[in-house]
Amino acid sequence: MVRRMMMRMLPVWFLFALVGGPVFAADPGGATTLQAMPSLPTDYVWILVCGFLVFFMQAGFAMVETGFCRAKNTTNLLSKNLIDFVVASLVFFAVGYGFLKGNDLGGFIGVGRWFLRGEAYDVGTYLDFFWQLVFCGTAATIVSGAVAERLKFPAYLMYTFLVSFFVYPIYAHWVWGGGWLSKLPFGVGHADFAGSGVVHAIGGMIGLAGAMVLGPRFGKYGKDRKPLAIPGHNMSLAALGTFILWFGWFGFNPGSTFSAHHLRIAVVAVNTNLAAAAGALTTLLVMYAKTRKWDLGMTLNGTLGGLVAVTAPCAWIEGWAAVVIGAVAGILVVAGVYFFESRGIDDPVGAVSVHGLNGLWGLLSVGLFADGTYGLYTLEPPYVTGLFYGGGGGQLLAQLIGVLAVVAWSFGLGYLMFKVMDLAFGIRVTPEEELQGLDIFEHGTPAYPEFTRHRILFQERRSERVQA
Amino acid sequence: MVRRMMMRMLPVWFLFALVGGPVFAADPGGATTLQAMPSLPTDYVWILVCGFLVFFMQAGFAMVETGFCRAKNTTNLLSKNLIDFVVASLVFFAVGYGFLKGNDLGGFIGVGRWFLRGEAYDVGTYLDFFWQLVFCGTAATIVSGAVAERLKFPAYLMYTFLVSFFVYPIYAHWVWGGGWLSKLPFGVGHADFAGSGVVHAIGGMIGLAGAMVLGPRFGKYGKDRKPLAIPGHNMSLAALGTFILWFGWFGFNPGSTFSAHHLRIAVVAVNTNLAAAAGALTTLLVMYAKTRKWDLGMTLNGTLGGLVAVTAPCAWIEGWAAVVIGAVAGILVVAGVYFFESRGIDDPVGAVSVHGLNGLWGLLSVGLFADGTYGLYTLEPPYVTGLFYGGGGGQLLAQLIGVLAVVAWSFGLGYLMFKVMDLAFGIRVTPEEELQGLDIFEHGTPAYPEFTRHRILFQERRSERVQA
Amino acid sequence: MVRRMMMRMLPVWFLFALVGGPVFAADPGGATTLQAMPSLPTDYVWILVCGFLVFFMQAGFAMVETGFCRAKNTTNLLSKNLIDFVVASLVFFAVGYGFLKGNDLGGFIGVGRWFLRGEAYDVGTYLDFFWQLVFCGTAATIVSGAVAERLKFPAYLMYTFLVSFFVYPIYAHWVWGGGWLSKLPFGVGHADFAGSGVVHAIGGMIGLAGAMVLGPRFGKYGKDRKPLAIPGHNMSLAALGTFILWFGWFGFNPGSTFSAHHLRIAVVAVNTNLAAAAGALTTLLVMYAKTRKWDLGMTLNGTLGGLVAVTAPCAWIEGWAAVVIGAVAGILVVAGVYFFESRGIDDPVGAVSVHGLNGLWGLLSVGLFADGTYGLYTLEPPYVTGLFYGGGGGQLLAQLIGVLAVVAWSFGLGYLMFKVMDLAFGIRVTPEEELQGLDIFEHGTPAYPEFTRHRILFQERRSERVQA
Repeated sequence: MVRRMMMRMLPVWFLFALVGGPVFAADPGGATTLQAMPSLPTDYVWILVCGFLVFFMQAGFAMVETGFCRAKNTTNLLSKNLIDFVVASLVFFAVGYGFLKGNDLGGFIGVGRWFLRGEAYDVGTYLDFFWQLVFCGTAATIVSGAVAERLKFPAYLMYTFLVSFFVYPIYAHWVWGGGWLSKLPFGVGHADFAGSGVVHAIGGMIGLAGAMVLGPRFGKYGKDRKPLAIPGHNMSLAALGTFILWFGWFGFNPGSTFSAHHLRIAVVAVNTNLAAAAGALTTLLVMYAKTRKWDLGMTLNGTLGGLVAVTAPCAWIEGWAAVVIGAVAGILVVAGVYFFESRGIDDPVGAVSVHGLNGLWGLLSVGLFADGTYGLYTLEPPYVTGLFYGGGGGQLLAQLIGVLAVVAWSFGLGYLMFKVMDLAFGIRVTPEEELQGLDIFEHGTPAYPEFTRHRILFQERRSERVQA
Repeated sequence: MVRRMMMRMLPVWFLFALVGGPVFAADPGGATTLQAMPSLPTDYVWILVCGFLVFFMQAGFAMVETGFCRAKNTTNLLSKNLIDFVVASLVFFAVGYGFLKGNDLGGFIGVGRWFLRGEAYDVGTYLDFFWQLVFCGTAATIVSGAVAERLKFPAYLMYTFLVSFFVYPIYAHWVWGGGWLSKLPFGVGHADFAGSGVVHAIGGMIGLAGAMVLGPRFGKYGKDRKPLAIPGHNMSLAALGTFILWFGWFGFNPGSTFSAHHLRIAVVAVNTNLAAAAGALTTLLVMYAKTRKWDLGMTLNGTLGGLVAVTAPCAWIEGWAAVVIGAVAGILVVAGVYFFESRGIDDPVGAVSVHGLNGLWGLLSVGLFADGTYGLYTLEPPYVTGLFYGGGGGQLLAQLIGVLAVVAWSFGLGYLMFKVMDLAFGIRVTPEEELQGLDIFEHGTPAYPEFTRHRILFQERRSERVQA
Repeated sequence: MVRRMMMRMLPVWFLFALVGGPVFAADPGGATTLQAMPSLPTDYVWILVCGFLVFFMQAGFAMVETGFCRAKNTTNLLSKNLIDFVVASLVFFAVGYGFLKGNDLGGFIGVGRWFLRGEAYDVGTYLDFFWQLVFCGTAATIVSGAVAERLKFPAYLMYTFLVSFFVYPIYAHWVWGGGWLSKLPFGVGHADFAGSGVVHAIGGMIGLAGAMVLGPRFGKYGKDRKPLAIPGHNMSLAALGTFILWFGWFGFNPGSTFSAHHLRIAVVAVNTNLAAAAGALTTLLVMYAKTRKWDLGMTLNGTLGGLVAVTAPCAWIEGWAAVVIGAVAGILVVAGVYFFESRGIDDPVGAVSVHGLNGLWGLLSVGLFADGTYGLYTLEPPYVTGLFYGGGGGQLLAQLIGVLAVVAWSFGLGYLMFKVMDLAFGIRVTPEEELQGLDIFEHGTPAYPEFTRHRILFQERRSERVQA
């Protein structure tokens, strides 16, 4: 059934051709826009380059998740991390972007700009689309880690379609598209600078839902019901991926000013870096206190936790606050990993703690540490001000409402999505496939045929047929 | 003989010193240029950063090709992917760039600017050189994949010298240096925005020539003459490489406006991304229909095929057209890989289909989908307009002539080059070397001494000598 | 003792919170700064993007060092390469940056700007901090290669704290912070454009000190006292790392104009690339002449040597000089590696030759090749002029003094630092740990549990407890 459904997607390409045709308006060439605002090129360069960096985070996620999992599921994880951005690119182009940035309907959803045609064939709209897309793609790719090593590939295709179709776009509309959360009458409204909530909490919460519906991997819990560590197959890839993500985050956060004329980008870059460092160091020390080992895997996650947490507040805080926020994030990562593990929730790469918990912590921290020096993507007041800087509790309340909204929306829809798919066609691979690895069964190609035991298999098969 | 020839290159460095000396003119410091055009810094930043991204594609090619080949040839492939850019950098600096951008001689070749000295010691010329160099380097590096696992290293050194010396520069002069192809009296002349033809078709066609002269790898065809899959040794590297290439392509295509003041760069970025995604999804689905497996290797190539195809038209089309062009590219990759394989042409990484076929398809697509909103690197008319947008067949004809020219030039010279070298000193390694791997024989160092069987070898040798 | 000391670092976070609080001045929002200088956004974009590239070099160092060492120390090397930037980020933020760029005290040290608070909470200061930080982080991370496979992790933590606390900042103050070296009355004063001395010689010299104090790895020298090659475990990582470093160097060098309005950035980019290429080719040929093998490992180091050497002169020379400087660098790398090895100094990745020797060569080359077309980070005279361009010996003398200063300061303090730590608690791991690898003992996690012999270990332990 799933197969047939997939095959039916092929004609969709012809649909693309049908909606195509030589009708457009606005400013596709860009000459008029430039004339109206001669300082724009610097902003375009800034936004595009930062967008490229955010795109590159796809490579980071692929490497981190692959490194943290076992060799037998490598091809599968790489495929998922590639295909989620592929599907998101096309679906978000066709529809999702319209839900996010089309004309607002009642604060809930946007409409218009489908396929970037007509009035949307415009340099400014294309620029905005590119920026929103790489964020949507990031949210989508977070989930693959939490459901790793047991989710069927077609189920992942379906999930990624749904997330980029409406789950992400509609929530993003609430915060960044002029929807109800952005208009809350507390503080400046719900404020999430670069998406601790919109991107990371959504990804983390859907990941949590997926991990719960799937259940733990075979071998994750011992006879005594105690969790067992399943070590990742390649720490070099995991570390490389973390560096790539950290690098990409310099696009993610500073680029979210959506203007190079906000020199505040320098502060955003410094804060992003400080939180990452603080998250890493705290995790390293906490784990050392606990195990007397310098735990690299957890420290990599602590780094990412710091980055996730600072994503919402990064534009509104001072350096020292970034350090505090990151340090707390590092502790949250450790606590979260142990907590979920102890509750029977198997999240192979720690995505729920890194992106979910710290996404929420990031949102709250805005209400505490925002120092009233920068507005909501503007240089003008009203500035975002938190509790510690005399802003009263209004901003914190707006942040709390956002926390509740993002959890309800993404965990709720995520759970529904995976549960319905599970009832319809079963989202978990067979036990045999899980034991042998998804690479052989779903993809036909082991990732390292010369190194793992598949090596022998392959050589035997081939030696029968090779020319003498 | 080869050895001696290589050694004789050493004194070349002294030649560099000889042509050096304190004579120059123009504006090496940049103050005059800045005064004349105060908006240039934004363009310089844009072009340099995009150029850095294009440079980084070298890492992408190295990882993709290495991942798709066997462990025993890893050091060799990495060496080739490093050294081609090294040789190109020096040869293109000394002479190649002059052939491309020197004063035009009869529409065929440029002369001047040697070693970037004299009048060429100028910030604008250095900037242009950097941009042209990273493109030349990309063309050179494509070939290593098609001739992988059997071409002698010195032959590769020679090939890379010749390509960056005149094969690439002269053809690039025809299209981008004011040569005859750019002046064709059809449409706006032959139009190849970022080099589907100049870079990718050249690389792909020379690769085809190389693969034909070399013949298939030992073990590629069974006793029944049917092709056998030779799986790559590391899918993580292949996927990482593809992500790096995709990332680098955001420099390659949008940067080719050679100006940040063309806000069209936003459209170029979106189109580049859409074609990549469409190429990936089509390939994934076509391969699934064929094999019932989600084929990662082919999907990575489909992604690259989409990127190659959209490279020529990316600045002149709408988003939907990028999707169609990419989708066709994905199909072409699959068809091409099976076609060449069935004809006894062994292209280990699929470079001929990805870069060759799709380079040509990209050129043609300009004549079909160009929508008349942007000119030939200018905001002013004449705009590039294809068949589907009422441009008549003129542009398509200009594209077709370019297709014929690039195939004739690059396949012809490529075949000649490899054939002459083969007759002179033999370009293929010995059967024993091919079976044992090129790493040990040509480079003396296995890439993974602790993981492959070389491990034992090394340990035995060492244990005899180590201190107790 | 060390353990307890580490644990005591935890409360440091609270200190961060204490010094925090709502006091600041200057221009944290950036509106005033923008109004005063409307062309700044382009500079901010340039500096930040280049800074991001420099940050990414951390990934490059991690991959190169890991690839060049053995699998059993992978987790350890990755951890060190992560944690040095982490510690540097926090310590340099708290104090180090103040020593570098605070108010000058007698030409020796700066004071102020602690924690970037008060007057330092300013977009311009944050921008400068970010730039200085990524350079400090690079200097710190170079050392890990020279002391690889035998230095205790806590000793590395301590070292990295001291280096980013005062060793790097004070020397950098001398050159870049208005200190005594920058005010030498010869030439334009000591000139080190992007840090051949400040970053690379410091890192290389401290690495030399560390390698000397530690002594060679077990198995590095045979019974006959002749050095034995200890091959790295993964050439793919080493090559990837080199490409990443080369890529990052395009931020390192061109970004050091600290202004996009110096169009000279184009010349800097070209020179950087040419020196890398020349370094690579020379090394390749020299090694081939010596061993009849195309030595990839050494060629990668030759590439890096060329990059290090050109770092000081890159803004003041022509292309041909960059080729000569890089070619000499390639020879120096080979000569240095053999020299240190023959003297019983075991530098597993060649960091001392690449960064130390070539850092010094780079400093000297300024006094020879500077061509008098560009000033000391300004477009105005006095221009930097070397011996070959009629500048007399003044500049060369200033460079020579810098060479002596950097060697004395960094080798001296480095030796003292490692020696004192060694006497206090022993900086070398136990012989058993060294033989089994640092990964298991210090970190508890092998990097490749499924590939190396640890595989069996892990599987045995687990099979006892797994559910049936």
